[in-house]
Amino acid sequence: MFIRNPRNPLIRPQDVKPSHPDFEIIGTFNAGATSYGDHVILLVRVAERPTYSPNGVLRCPHLTHEGELTITEIRRDDPNYDTSDPRKVENRRMGELLLTSISHLRLARSQDGVHFAVDERPWLFPSTPDEGFGIEDARITQIGDVYCINYTAVSRYGVATALVTTRDFVTIERHGIIFPPANRDVTIFPERINGLYVCYHRPMPAMFGGYNIWLATSPDLKHWGQHKLVLEAKLDGWESGRVGSGVPPLYTEGGWLSIYHAADRQDRYCLGAFLTPHDQPERIIAYSQQPILSPESSYETQGFFPNVVFACGAVSKDNLLRVYYGAADESIALAEIPINTLIDQLTPVASR
Amino acid sequence: MFIRNPRNPLIRPQDVKPSHPDFEIIGTFNAGATSYGDHVILLVRVAERPTYSPNGVLRCPHLTHEGELTITEIRRDDPNYDTSDPRKVENRRMGELLLTSISHLRLARSQDGVHFAVDERPWLFPSTPDEGFGIEDARITQIGDVYCINYTAVSRYGVATALVTTRDFVTIERHGIIFPPANRDVTIFPERINGLYVCYHRPMPAMFGGYNIWLATSPDLKHWGQHKLVLEAKLDGWESGRVGSGVPPLYTEGGWLSIYHAADRQDRYCLGAFLTPHDQPERIIAYSQQPILSPESSYETQGFFPNVVFACGAVSKDNLLRVYYGAADESIALAEIPINTLIDQLTPVASR
Repeated sequence: MFIRNPRNPLIRPQDVKPSHPDFEIIGTFNAGATSYGDHVILLVRVAERPTYSPNGVLRCPHLTHEGELTITEIRRDDPNYDTSDPRKVENRRMGELLLTSISHLRLARSQDGVHFAVDERPWLFPSTPDEGFGIEDARITQIGDVYCINYTAVSRYGVATALVTTRDFVTIERHGIIFPPANRDVTIFPERINGLYVCYHRPMPAMFGGYNIWLATSPDLKHWGQHKLVLEAKLDGWESGRVGSGVPPLYTEGGWLSIYHAADRQDRYCLGAFLTPHDQPERIIAYSQQPILSPESSYETQGFFPNVVFACGAVSKDNLLRVYYGAADESIALAEIPINTLIDQLTPVASR
Repeated sequence: MFIRNPRNPLIRPQDVKPSHPDFEIIGTFNAGATSYGDHVILLVRVAERPTYSPNGVLRCPHLTHEGELTITEIRRDDPNYDTSDPRKVENRRMGELLLTSISHLRLARSQDGVHFAVDERPWLFPSTPDEGFGIEDARITQIGDVYCINYTAVSRYGVATALVTTRDFVTIERHGIIFPPANRDVTIFPERINGLYVCYHRPMPAMFGGYNIWLATSPDLKHWGQHKLVLEAKLDGWESGRVGSGVPPLYTEGGWLSIYHAADRQDRYCLGAFLTPHDQPERIIAYSQQPILSPESSYETQGFFPNVVFACGAVSKDNLLRVYYGAADESIALAEIPINTLIDQLTPVASR
């Protein structure tokens, strides 16, 4: 069983400085995590919106095609627009979309893994046409002395996944879009398997086909192929809406351990886990029949988007796994579990 | 202006033998094309359905998970199923889908490019779980003495793109899924550009983002990345529903010439064309403001899915381009145009 940290939530919107004087922060959540020297580093998704919104007007932040931050104002009573969802505005006639907030990545640092100092400025701010609606949900994978950071790049063209790398969390090298729309929840393995890099990813196909977890391989981290289905959303239960990879796979003696998220058809998000052989990351040999973590605490069941626990990162030391997870799309929380305890909870899969 | 061949349509369902004694052919269309020795080879999409369907029952062909061809029977009056679309059946409760036909690829051969002999047996039949609903819309690209054939692999997991290669159109090597769901209309360039293979592809993102043409690069044809948007569907007019690459790009003196398809919001499919520099295949320098071919002949405006011209392949000799295209999702037709005449029709784009 996971033990929630008594200081949860560790990072809340009011703990962080907006990137712009006219903005307010509505969410600090879904952070990538890694050990770096003696510290834990988080790359936090910070969602912001304009502080000032006159009555009856929605102000949607986004980039222009030239990469400048701008705000499009929509009158709530304009019959051309659907403003019923607090997260987005839809142009009924054109089928076009705007978001009511824009996210960037912010670096937070801690020596004890519980008390975090959050940078005053963004670590990575949206800047390309592919990022016009924001960048979200970083995952960090250390490969040698390089940290690979993939994140969701959102724009009018859909939800894609981009990659950057860094050696020091100061200098950032961009590698562009590695998965075109619609694809997110990419987790890269920390080692090559059979000579190739490996990741899980979660396509979101239009029309039909579920929101399932797939595997891909790469010779260079930039080009991905050999796509194979790994885990399907289920017909009912806690995995009936979608599944998506969460924390980059962790090497354990018994195989690769992955923590993923699943949502049911009411958009309640839980965490699950599965195990694969070291040399066959597409083959699940044990998995969680029930959630390993469900939204139960007040900061998980109440907030911007209630009933969500969503993990993008974890750090481990010896046998202890510390999972940093987004709670209710609003704050960051921590839960811990011994790795062997977690693996013991998993149900073996009959071999295929 | 394109000149339609007077013998159109060149291949019709009644000209081809079903793959199975209990099946009938409902479409022979959307063929990949290449020159091979002195011949023109087409890989035709052949769509089949069970001949026998008792009153009130729909019989949907598909593969089992083990790859065996099977038929699922759905009663038309079963309230759990939506049978209003002749192409598919939807389970209302589960959100699951079946198709009313299954497609495979059939080889057709011609010396004059007009009279085709169609093989009696499939060239490639669906066989993997990713192909459980069929394989569709081949494109053929010759690179050296290898022919790369990508096609749409349809299954309950969505619409993906797979790759096979052959040197002789007899021995086939499979390379698996190169673009995960939902992605189709992949056209591979016949040469490497700046050291990498290049293709256009057409993601179909769920929720938002248009059905647009993107570019990707690859070191090995199996792993693809560096995705960049190339051509967007428009807000209105003949390209307002979707655009997708059609014929693999053709090297011309003035740049790479691509023929693509576009559909409007009434699902009327036309052909367009654009030109890019040899070293910048993501940058359109000239394009067709109006369709270069529209459904006008009776075999294009009437048929299984009316008002469709859809090209997957062409062959060229000297200055003459012969485009083989699917008409009304039912038959294959041929239209010809001098390459310089087609390029002269294109409107230059103001440089960005």
